[in-house]
Order: sequence, then C-alpha cells, then structure tokens
Amino acid sequence: MITLSSDFGTPYPAAMKGVLCQHSDARLVDVAHDFPRQDVRATAFWLREVLPYFPPAVHLVVVDPGVGTDRAAIAIRAGNHAFVGPDNGVLLPVARELGDSDDPEIFEIEYEDADSSTFHGRDVFAPAAGRIHEIGVDSLEDLPDIAPTEEFEDLRFPEPKITESDATGEILVVDDFGNAITNVPGGFLDDVTEIVVNGDTAPVEPSYAHVEPNRRLVTVGSHGNVELAVNRGRGDDAFGVTFGDDLRLEK
Amino acid sequence: MITLSSDFGTPYPAAMKGVLCQHSDARLVDVAHDFPRQDVRATAFWLREVLPYFPPAVHLVVVDPGVGTDRAAIAIRAGNHAFVGPDNGVLLPVARELGDSDDPEIFEIEYEDADSSTFHGRDVFAPAAGRIHEIGVDSLEDLPDIAPTEEFEDLRFPEPKITESDATGEILVVDDFGNAITNVPGGFLDDVTEIVVNGDTAPVEPSYAHVEPNRRLVTVGSHGNVELAVNRGRGDDAFGVTFGDDLRLEK
Amino acid sequence: MITLSSDFGTPYPAAMKGVLCQHSDARLVDVAHDFPRQDVRATAFWLREVLPYFPPAVHLVVVDPGVGTDRAAIAIRAGNHAFVGPDNGVLLPVARELGDSDDPEIFEIEYEDADSSTFHGRDVFAPAAGRIHEIGVDSLEDLPDIAPTEEFEDLRFPEPKITESDATGEILVVDDFGNAITNVPGGFLDDVTEIVVNGDTAPVEPSYAHVEPNRRLVTVGSHGNVELAVNRGRGDDAFGVTFGDDLRLEK
Repeated sequence: MITLSSDFGTPYPAAMKGVLCQHSDARLVDVAHDFPRQDVRATAFWLREVLPYFPPAVHLVVVDPGVGTDRAAIAIRAGNHAFVGPDNGVLLPVARELGDSDDPEIFEIEYEDADSSTFHGRDVFAPAAGRIHEIGVDSLEDLPDIAPTEEFEDLRFPEPKITESDATGEILVVDDFGNAITNVPGGFLDDVTEIVVNGDTAPVEPSYAHVEPNRRLVTVGSHGNVELAVNRGRGDDAFGVTFGDDLRLEK
Repeated sequence: MITLSSDFGTPYPAAMKGVLCQHSDARLVDVAHDFPRQDVRATAFWLREVLPYFPPAVHLVVVDPGVGTDRAAIAIRAGNHAFVGPDNGVLLPVARELGDSDDPEIFEIEYEDADSSTFHGRDVFAPAAGRIHEIGVDSLEDLPDIAPTEEFEDLRFPEPKITESDATGEILVVDDFGNAITNVPGGFLDDVTEIVVNGDTAPVEPSYAHVEPNRRLVTVGSHGNVELAVNRGRGDDAFGVTFGDDLRLEK
Repeated sequence: MITLSSDFGTPYPAAMKGVLCQHSDARLVDVAHDFPRQDVRATAFWLREVLPYFPPAVHLVVVDPGVGTDRAAIAIRAGNHAFVGPDNGVLLPVARELGDSDDPEIFEIEYEDADSSTFHGRDVFAPAAGRIHEIGVDSLEDLPDIAPTEEFEDLRFPEPKITESDATGEILVVDDFGNAITNVPGGFLDDVTEIVVNGDTAPVEPSYAHVEPNRRLVTVGSHGNVELAVNRGRGDDAFGVTFGDDLRLEK
C-alpha cells in the first residue's frame, strides 16, 4: 500500500498517481491533497494523527516549500512503514510515533536530472516511493540511490508547561471545522467541569453536542489533546485564536 | 467493496480508510467527504441518488451531529447492500430505495470504550463496516455486537401535493452547481413548455444548454425530479430559493 | 485501469464510479473532479499535462457544457490508451500527445434512451468506458455501438510567435497556486536572468524558493512552459493576468 499526502490541490496529484502506477501495482490511498499550502508544521501534525491508523505502508508526502533548492530528498523507516518526502521535518513527528523511537532510520535519496525543478513530487518522490514499495521497506537500503544519513531537518512540536492548576501551551492547528487543537494533553481536563481559557471561562464537555448549537466548549479531541470548539460552529473564531497562538488554561 | 461518505473534509477520512485497511482488503471507494456539514437531510438525499448505482457493497456513512451523545450506532441490510452509520435517519431513504422495501432490516451496533468520544467514524463505524464486509452482508447478525432492533430514528422526505394544473412541494437540496432540486417528480413537466415558479414564468427545457448562458430554466434533473437551474449559472440565486423553501409550480 | 476526470465536484462522480464498478473490476483512479466548471480548454490543458504519466488506461473525461444537446459522444484510441467523453475537443490535445500522432483514431459512440438528459457521465460515458476497458483498447471497435468517424470538434492550443529576442503568446491557464502558465516553451528562457513581461522586468529563476516570499519570478514550470509566479503567493495577481490574456516577453 502507498498513501499520498500533499498540498497540491488538483490535478497535480494525479501525475504522481500515474507515476506510482507505472512503478507498482500497490493499492493507492489518498490521505489528503489539501494540506495547508506549504505549511510543514500543520501537515506534520495531521500526518501524526492519521497515518498511525494504517497498516504497514509506504507514505509519500509532498509539502515542499523548498522544491528546486538544494534541500535533500529523504526516506525514513519506522517499524514496517516507510516515509518518502522532502527533508524539511514534515516526516519526523509521524515517523517517531510509528517507529516508537526518538531516532528513526533516515536515508538520503540521491537524485539528479529531475525532469522538472518545480515538481519533485512527480519526478523524484513518487518514483522513489514506488521503488521502495517494490523492493520492500526492510530492504530499502539496497536501492542504489539510497544511503543512510545522520543529517536532516528536524521538527518537534512545542511541549506545554503543565502544573496541577494551569497549563501554558499553544494552538497547534485549526481543523476544517474550526476546532482549535492545542498541545495540552486531554488528561489535564480530568474531573474538570469548566476551565479558564486565556482569561475567559468555558464549559468542559465530553463532546460537541453536549452544549447548545453555537455555544463554546472545551473538549478532548480525537487526537487526545485539549480542543477549543463550538457546537456546529467555529471554535477558532469564538475563542479568538489561530494556529501558533499562545494558550493559557487555568482550572 | 466498501464505500465511504462523510462531512469530514480532510484529513479525517484518511484515518477511517486506515482502519478499514486494517480490517479488510476490500476495494475502498470514496463517495464524498464534503457533504453539507452535519446536514443529515441533504446527505440522505444524495446517498439515495448515488449509492443505488453501486454493485453490492458495505456503505459507511458518517454525518453525525450527535456524536458523543447517547445516539445509537446502526447497521441496515437492504438487498445485498449494508449501511453502517449513526442512528439519525441518514441511512433510511437509500436503504428503502435499495432494499425495495419500506421496512429495511435494522441492527444496533453495541459499542463501548471508544477511544474517542468525538470520532466514532474512526473508532466505531469504520471497524464495524470492516467486520461486516469480512463476515458478509448475509451473515452480519452473526457478529457478537450486532443485534436486530425495532427502534430507530426515521427520516422521510416530504411528499409533494400534485394536481393536474399545479404542484406544491419543497426545495430538497441545492447542488454544487447551484441547481435547486425539488421533490416534484419530473413527470409533472410532461408536454409543458413553460411553467410558473413561485409566481414567475420560466421555460421548461430538456437540459441546460437549451437556453442562452445565464438564463433561467426548469428541467428534469438526473435524479428524475424537477430542478430550477441557470445555464452556466446558479439556479438557487436566480430563482431566489434555498433548501427547505416551499415551492409552487403552476402550468 | 480507468481514470476519471470531471468538473462535477461531489457527489455526482460517485455515481459514475458505481456504474464503472458494475461493468468492470478495473482499478479506478480519480484524476480530478474540480476542473474549472464547463471549461473545455483548461481541462484539455491539464489532461495533456497529467495523463501521459499513466500506464495504458481508459480515461473517462466529462467536462460537458453541451450535455443534452445533439453533441456526439466519442472515444479516441491513442497508443495503448483510450479516451471517452463528449465531442467538444477536450480529449484531442492529450490524445495527440499520447498517441504521438496528429491524427488519432476517433470513434463515435451511439447512444439512445439515456436515463437522463443531464447526466451523460453516468448514463452514457461511464458505461462506454467500462465496456471499452473490458473488451480491450485494441478491440474497442468490436463493440456494436462504436464506429469510426471523421467528424469531430477539434481543439488546438494557440502557437506562440518566437524570435531570438521576444515571444508573443498567451496565458493558457492559471493553476490552483495562482501560477500563470503560458504557451511559450521554457527553452526561450535559456541563459536569461531577467525578462520583460508585458513591459515590466522580472527575474528568471529555476524555482519559486529562489526569490524571497511574496516576490515575483518567471520560471519554467513542471509542464515545460514559461510560468509567471510568486514565491508563496499568486502569480496571476502579481502580474495582472488571467487565462486567455495576451503575453509579450522581451529579453
């Protein structure tokens, strides 16, 4: 199985699918092609949320603001999964999660003479993903153009500061529904019925429908983190936050 | 084959696909993941339009404004098809259509300890759909957590009132193109060349291109119902209607 | 393999997928269903860009402003590929590219009694694509309702006028990123470091990230043509152009 993730919209991902079909009969599964444009951090967050639900696969990821510069192309092996994409950190959080290791195995993919300096997804990453799938994740270093490397761009999400009574963190990302997802673990809300968010009190509820439509709530999202939400509305607007904003929660 | 329908946008559906791939090698076909947000009625309409074109399949549907409340999870068997989703009526119109019966077989899916109270699509419905696919639609009641039920939320579309000269109905839904789809059967327009819509006369045409660009028309859509449209434009704006609005047609 | 391209948005393409699944077990690959609405020319451009990356396949294409009029349904054979869609020119540029011939083999698909006069994608083209896939591209003329034809709507992109010092062409299309793609071959920029675009000078760069964010550049896109772009921004806005506009480049 090969999964595809990008910020390409359409129809560019189809060219990657065509190339993959030329290299492999693998099942292709689209993860998303509308990740926030050139937003490495938000994409890294979402990949860490959704890819762990897949069985072993090769995951092709192309969110690549540095395309055409000298940034490297890399592959990462984590457990029975492999990741292929640009060396900008986007693959690291999910690779650490799936490999259950702080030090996943990272490989540089050498390339030259790419047909295009602006579409490495089609010309560099998709062929590499197809070849890794065919040779097998366990044997990827047998490919002639792939070699272990110790140098790579890292990416880690900020750690929240948590005491018994308050938490200082950050809005990691806002999803399509407008839910503002924080880096504060959901356990902080255990046995709490209301919480002060950046100075304003809001109810803590097990899910959206526990408050009336258009009312604010704080809940634990499907990702396990504290989330600022509105039942049938947008939490980011109601709480006045966007991704990257600081957050302070007080019991 | 398992089809997927939701209002999740991206990337949440990918987590459901990952879970399905863990349970089954079934072919996965996306129906849509941009059904109108938490709009059970419009989704029910569209499912009834498109799912009958599929060969026998398990259809996973997650448009679920009540997620995390005590609403039940259900499966419905209709002919060789099975439907899996929340007990909010969204599955009923298509199940009646495909089962060719007013009383489809409905089963409650018991669940507990869902990993998340906000993402039953991933934690409850996708695993159930995968297991129903593997055991077979004919044998779904052999699964230990599935039992027949007589209690469920029903959903029926309003019936129009039709005489020889006029029809009183409703705008059921507006599609992506802006076509306003009514609940009046297309046969009402037989041998009619123009019709009065809520007091204004419009031409009746076999298809959009029979009028000049940006001109209004009334036609019979691919769903077999009367539709208010504009050639290369939006019928909802031109006729001043939106879904749920009353409609009166006079010959 | 059968690929699907349309301007239908959702959920209409799912009905085509259902019909295809009824006719064939072929792998289905979505190219895009958000091609610019009823824009035959832009779709023709994109198909020529992405479909050549696929292995041999049947390509179903439904961008069809003339649906329900007397426009014909056609199939084109080009190499080991077949194309199925409306007779409006949309298939010609990619068929010429993939068939490596200026005269691809064109067939008319006879149809009658389509269930719907507004959804030929589901009722005419998808069944034809499924049957062509099953009988094989080499034998498509053995199908009873398919016959060679010499009459068809052609579509060719305008040729630029190029001298050593300047080029006069056109903006063929603007992509999702706002990149304005011209019909001037990239070779015109060889050994050039800046260029005058419609009177204003802009730098020529190998890719977007070679200029600061929000700065204009002229580059050669993944399609091999000259492209007007902005790093992390929209080239169409910055250069004040949209598709169909005239373009003059001076060294």
